[in-house]
Amino acid sequence: KMLRRVLCAVLFMGALPSLAEGTQGHISVVLLGATGDLAKKYLWQGLFQLYMDQVSSGHSFTFHGAALTALEPGQRLMFDVLKKLACPPDEAPNRCAVLKDQFLKLSQYHQLKTAENYTALNREIETLLRQEGLREAGRIFYFSVPPFAYTEIARHINSSCRPPRGAWLRVVLEKPFGHDLESAQQLAAELTSFFREEEMYRVDHYLGKQAVAHILPFRDQNRQFLDPIWNRHHVERVEIVLKETVDARGRTSFYEQYGVIRDVLQNHLTEALTFLTMELPANVSRTEEVLQCKLQAFQSLRSLEKNSAVLGQYQAYASQVQEELQKAQDYISTTPTFAGVLVHSDSLRWEGVPFLLTSGKALDERVGYVRVLFKNRAYCTQSETLRDAGHSQCKAKQIIFYIGHGALNTPAVLVSRNLFRPVMPEGSWREAVGQSDLHVFGQPLSDYYVYRPVKERDAYSVLISNIYHGRKDFFITTENLLASWAFWTPLLDSISYQPLRLYPGGVENQHLLDFEMVSGELAFTVVEPVELLNPNRLMPSDYRTIQSKFRQSPLVSAWSEDLISQLASDIEKTARKTVAHSGQFHLALSGGSSPVVLFQRLARHHYAFPWKHTHIWLVDERCVPLTDTESNFFSLHNHLLQNVRVPYFNVHPMPVHLNQRLCVEEDRGTELYAKEIMALVANASFDLVLLGVGSDGHTASLFPRSDNGLEGAQAVVLTESPVKPHQRMSLSLPLINKARQVFVLVLGKGKHDITTLLSRVGHEPRKWPVSGVSPSSGQLVWYVDYEALLG
Amino acid sequence: KMLRRVLCAVLFMGALPSLAEGTQGHISVVLLGATGDLAKKYLWQGLFQLYMDQVSSGHSFTFHGAALTALEPGQRLMFDVLKKLACPPDEAPNRCAVLKDQFLKLSQYHQLKTAENYTALNREIETLLRQEGLREAGRIFYFSVPPFAYTEIARHINSSCRPPRGAWLRVVLEKPFGHDLESAQQLAAELTSFFREEEMYRVDHYLGKQAVAHILPFRDQNRQFLDPIWNRHHVERVEIVLKETVDARGRTSFYEQYGVIRDVLQNHLTEALTFLTMELPANVSRTEEVLQCKLQAFQSLRSLEKNSAVLGQYQAYASQVQEELQKAQDYISTTPTFAGVLVHSDSLRWEGVPFLLTSGKALDERVGYVRVLFKNRAYCTQSETLRDAGHSQCKAKQIIFYIGHGALNTPAVLVSRNLFRPVMPEGSWREAVGQSDLHVFGQPLSDYYVYRPVKERDAYSVLISNIYHGRKDFFITTENLLASWAFWTPLLDSISYQPLRLYPGGVENQHLLDFEMVSGELAFTVVEPVELLNPNRLMPSDYRTIQSKFRQSPLVSAWSEDLISQLASDIEKTARKTVAHSGQFHLALSGGSSPVVLFQRLARHHYAFPWKHTHIWLVDERCVPLTDTESNFFSLHNHLLQNVRVPYFNVHPMPVHLNQRLCVEEDRGTELYAKEIMALVANASFDLVLLGVGSDGHTASLFPRSDNGLEGAQAVVLTESPVKPHQRMSLSLPLINKARQVFVLVLGKGKHDITTLLSRVGHEPRKWPVSGVSPSSGQLVWYVDYEALLG
Repeated sequence: KMLRRVLCAVLFMGALPSLAEGTQGHISVVLLGATGDLAKKYLWQGLFQLYMDQVSSGHSFTFHGAALTALEPGQRLMFDVLKKLACPPDEAPNRCAVLKDQFLKLSQYHQLKTAENYTALNREIETLLRQEGLREAGRIFYFSVPPFAYTEIARHINSSCRPPRGAWLRVVLEKPFGHDLESAQQLAAELTSFFREEEMYRVDHYLGKQAVAHILPFRDQNRQFLDPIWNRHHVERVEIVLKETVDARGRTSFYEQYGVIRDVLQNHLTEALTFLTMELPANVSRTEEVLQCKLQAFQSLRSLEKNSAVLGQYQAYASQVQEELQKAQDYISTTPTFAGVLVHSDSLRWEGVPFLLTSGKALDERVGYVRVLFKNRAYCTQSETLRDAGHSQCKAKQIIFYIGHGALNTPAVLVSRNLFRPVMPEGSWREAVGQSDLHVFGQPLSDYYVYRPVKERDAYSVLISNIYHGRKDFFITTENLLASWAFWTPLLDSISYQPLRLYPGGVENQHLLDFEMVSGELAFTVVEPVELLNPNRLMPSDYRTIQSKFRQSPLVSAWSEDLISQLASDIEKTARKTVAHSGQFHLALSGGSSPVVLFQRLARHHYAFPWKHTHIWLVDERCVPLTDTESNFFSLHNHLLQNVRVPYFNVHPMPVHLNQRLCVEEDRGTELYAKEIMALVANASFDLVLLGVGSDGHTASLFPRSDNGLEGAQAVVLTESPVKPHQRMSLSLPLINKARQVFVLVLGKGKHDITTLLSRVGHEPRKWPVSGVSPSSGQLVWYVDYEALLG
Repeated sequence: KMLRRVLCAVLFMGALPSLAEGTQGHISVVLLGATGDLAKKYLWQGLFQLYMDQVSSGHSFTFHGAALTALEPGQRLMFDVLKKLACPPDEAPNRCAVLKDQFLKLSQYHQLKTAENYTALNREIETLLRQEGLREAGRIFYFSVPPFAYTEIARHINSSCRPPRGAWLRVVLEKPFGHDLESAQQLAAELTSFFREEEMYRVDHYLGKQAVAHILPFRDQNRQFLDPIWNRHHVERVEIVLKETVDARGRTSFYEQYGVIRDVLQNHLTEALTFLTMELPANVSRTEEVLQCKLQAFQSLRSLEKNSAVLGQYQAYASQVQEELQKAQDYISTTPTFAGVLVHSDSLRWEGVPFLLTSGKALDERVGYVRVLFKNRAYCTQSETLRDAGHSQCKAKQIIFYIGHGALNTPAVLVSRNLFRPVMPEGSWREAVGQSDLHVFGQPLSDYYVYRPVKERDAYSVLISNIYHGRKDFFITTENLLASWAFWTPLLDSISYQPLRLYPGGVENQHLLDFEMVSGELAFTVVEPVELLNPNRLMPSDYRTIQSKFRQSPLVSAWSEDLISQLASDIEKTARKTVAHSGQFHLALSGGSSPVVLFQRLARHHYAFPWKHTHIWLVDERCVPLTDTESNFFSLHNHLLQNVRVPYFNVHPMPVHLNQRLCVEEDRGTELYAKEIMALVANASFDLVLLGVGSDGHTASLFPRSDNGLEGAQAVVLTESPVKPHQRMSLSLPLINKARQVFVLVLGKGKHDITTLLSRVGHEPRKWPVSGVSPSSGQLVWYVDYEALLG
């Protein structure tokens, strides 16, 4: 028979185990890259485990190893692997031996290189099923191949290897899934042209780690205890950590392209993060609901900034790269091998709670954990000595999902005894008793309820079982993947400017990689001595801000992020000085996109800003309702006012919307605003006016050749913009020039031409309104970033 | 000579030490109550110390003990005390013996009982000075007598013993300074009629404790380190603790009237609190600036509520009181002997930082300390074992002012080594080296820089020295005293309702007195089993809220504080449900004084309120500018809006102020508000309207026999109030009755009559507008406190 012929190709001969028992239908598993490292180490063992677990499930199986290697050497290579498959300790040795024998007989090797190879594979599966009289349940294609091969293989599977109607197709993909948002989108688009979303299983093997996989079930089963405390009022911080002792030796060709953030944080640690931060769906076993909640968790993450991370590189890395990648002696790698990242969620539940994600190579120990530390809200009247005996409320309260290695050396779930005794599923987790005198996370192990898995299972076994069961919530959907890349890519882009701290590796690192939170940013704790790896870029003044002159006024220049920090600090300084002197601070702010970053910076990093005594005015406004997303005030509100405490009375939006209509002359909005200014601002001199510049030289909403606002007595004017929405309200140039201080912010390459022009021209407000900014008795300062200044 | 005659009255004879060296003038010290306990234990020793320290200062001294006892027995009693004066260990024995001899010669006893006695004393001092040819520098009168004797003595001193012009008078007063704000004001007023403020030195002996006295100098001398961290961003909590092992036995006649809060918290711990929280004046040695800053610190304290405290009484106390005060067996004392109090400052610097003040008798140890615990902002990448060697940033960071006793058994200042090495004045504090392996506050002593006083000095010696130097900042000014009583009195008033936890005393207390913070309140950690001491008062339903009917609608009733809690919870519940259902919540709030407590409760205890989706409307408004303190909106803003995050667009003050004028018909403010309601509130049905009731039966600003608003189509109306400001804007009754839910809040005895009336009358809105509140399809709930309900 055909089937015999197929199986004769197998090196190990014998009767084919009966497939006919499979009344639930037949499943063909195709492992692409069957002789590669991952397959050798984990995947075949995982498939064997699946077979052992499911042999009586009613499904029948065949396992097809595939690679580019020709049939005979490929067969030999593959069966060398299969012969070494281990029997798990919790399996009866006899049963395992029989099943291993059967597994080998059900496995065969295929060369999959050309389109014909795929067609042949498909034919063989069809023939086998027909001859054995089996219904086909589904096919699993496991891609254990480099990502560049994905598209080609996907095309072949799609065109030649789809199972007939009624049977499912599952393709399993291994990371990396792209290098940044753009490449991930591209790869996702390609795969989507071959497979439907529900057919794709993207593996993040962390989701197969027992402790990680149990985060959601734990939250679900312990709702009664966690509901009141799983929030910003009770959680002090969360640490998500994967420390490795190994370095990147032998893998630098991969590592040099990826680095620790792409290798570990963007995927593994981020998945753990979402399991912790997501809202719990009513039913955690509903895959679709879980995935929706995960996506929402991504939406709430606050965007990362350059200083959200501390980065390092172990000292030997450079020479390893030089050697393995044949680079010159002076080649400098800017790839981080260590990262600590501070993540914030702006959800109501988590606002303000620091989530610290940390990973690195060449560290002092190998360990992975997710640690939730609760706030200490207790005062223990009884003195310490007496206190330590019991499980006092004054001891730290923590929940730890211990992923593995480290002091415990097994996966575990730890809950402080002064918190609650957790509900754990009896079949899969059991309480560890008779503890050693081990200390973990600052406390003796006896301070915790400790649970260990009944059976320790390798992540790949767990994942292969979940593929078999179609549990998509254990895999990364396209949306999830892109959301994660969208979160990480801006940081990845910005840190190429960031110097790396060099560390010796191992215990020698000492405190060199310890870091701390300082006003919402991260910094290494040990400041000196530091050996920095400075990316070898030509940069003006080595990141420091340049101070000189522009149009006869002081100029501050830097890369945009540093410039914004400087500007925010300068505004705060002015505000504090002004409030100390006159009790209030009148600040007029411009709309547009540049100030948004400034607003965020002020809201997040300037806790000591005297908001209570600050009046907020608008420099200009679009004639749209204030709640319109186009409104300058709306943007100001969302990025600043919503997050600080300016008294309601001190907020002065422009009255563009009166009597249910927008900027109608008769409604006298401009007069109204002018009167408000006269009434509150001494001498109508704002303490500080923040302006921007358009590429046409406009500032505020004063456009070239405007009929209003460039001169004359009017304080507030209606103007016309060349771009939509056309109608605007604006402070006039004469009013602006009464200010005590005017800061002009100019950001980005797009402003280089106008910046250059402005450096040359004189006072010509009708041509370039911004050239008319010249405070009569106040000070003007230009804040221009390098891109605008230098192009 | 006269002088000889005076000195002959002295039991110990000998040559009078030369007074003539005193070119700086002579100081007479009069100790009233010279043979009492305090004088015996501390004051004479303090005066002797003063003499030893100042004998070469250029001042000459005489010391006059005084009491009610007749001359001869009084002399004997007093000199028995003086003979036992000790030489301090740091004084050369020879010098001390000589000085002690001189001190005895300079001391004499006086009976001070009648007006004549005071005149005689004055004459003796004058004569001595004249005969010795001495200029008088000043007189110190130390009141070591019970407070009931103060007024009488003060009158005599004022009328008979004032020194001549050019010399100062200092009267030193010992607590208690009153029993509550009213009695303290009364006592202060009496004293003020005899002495000028600068003449009075009110002793709080805690200000003489070396560690407490060093708080301000420490803050001043370590500004460089503390400036960035002495604030809410860095301080996690502060503990101010005075634990005693002794109980009140033998002192119950005093204690039963005062209790732990008046005895310790109102004075000692509050003084330490203000030293910590006050802003530092530029120059801490300027007494006046220090006192001003202390007063400001009091202004920032958030008012205490019933649940700001946990209270206990040791079990033996009741029988001690019964025995010592001859009370009946069933006498129940409600005097707390233990208190933990949570104090918050609303200053910009401290907002949100918990200050825990704790004191009690019959506890497990005797110790006093002020502990500032800083937030842990670090993540230590290096594993714990390696970490513990150094002074890692991951260890706790604390500054402790150790007052005395306890494990250290000396005053000390401790600063975590991972914080900074403090600047300490070399002459008075020295670093303690060669530490034992003691653990304090969770860490080995070696984790701290530890400083001890070079000379340990008794508090009274320190204070007497400060009296001599005129350092008024070491004493309690009248303003300071009254500010402290103003802060504590409301709590003292409200806790008479509060049950006390009974505790066995000593180490047996175990965790019984441990407590924790829960949403801004305090509660004992161990909930069961509790033995409560319930004040034996008849109270409806044992504090629980009563639920029944009022005017055919649901009625919730309780003591006002509990009622407000219940109402706030009910509003939050309604808000959450409504937002979950329709995405927004339209809440219309009334002005007046009753809602203020509600607003504060909502702002402080309801963190999970969906403010972001709540629209705030006004039920009524006074025709004054919004920033006028009379404005309902102003009050709402100050007590609620300023402290929560309602989007600017969702806040809807009534437009009473248009075109720079108030409530002018032509400005159509009522139409404007009605239009705003129609535009945003579906069907103009508010989700919740909160109303109050006036004693005339008015609600909102709808007064009896109002022409507007009681009926008709108008949604918003202008009305006239019988009281100022007369002009009002108000929602109309028909609009209110469209609401989905209406809560009416009625508080206080003043509302008892109208409440009784309303329980009887029907629907008569023209007579009693509130009787017209009857939502057509919504629900009405009455929240009436016991005082309004039961009178």
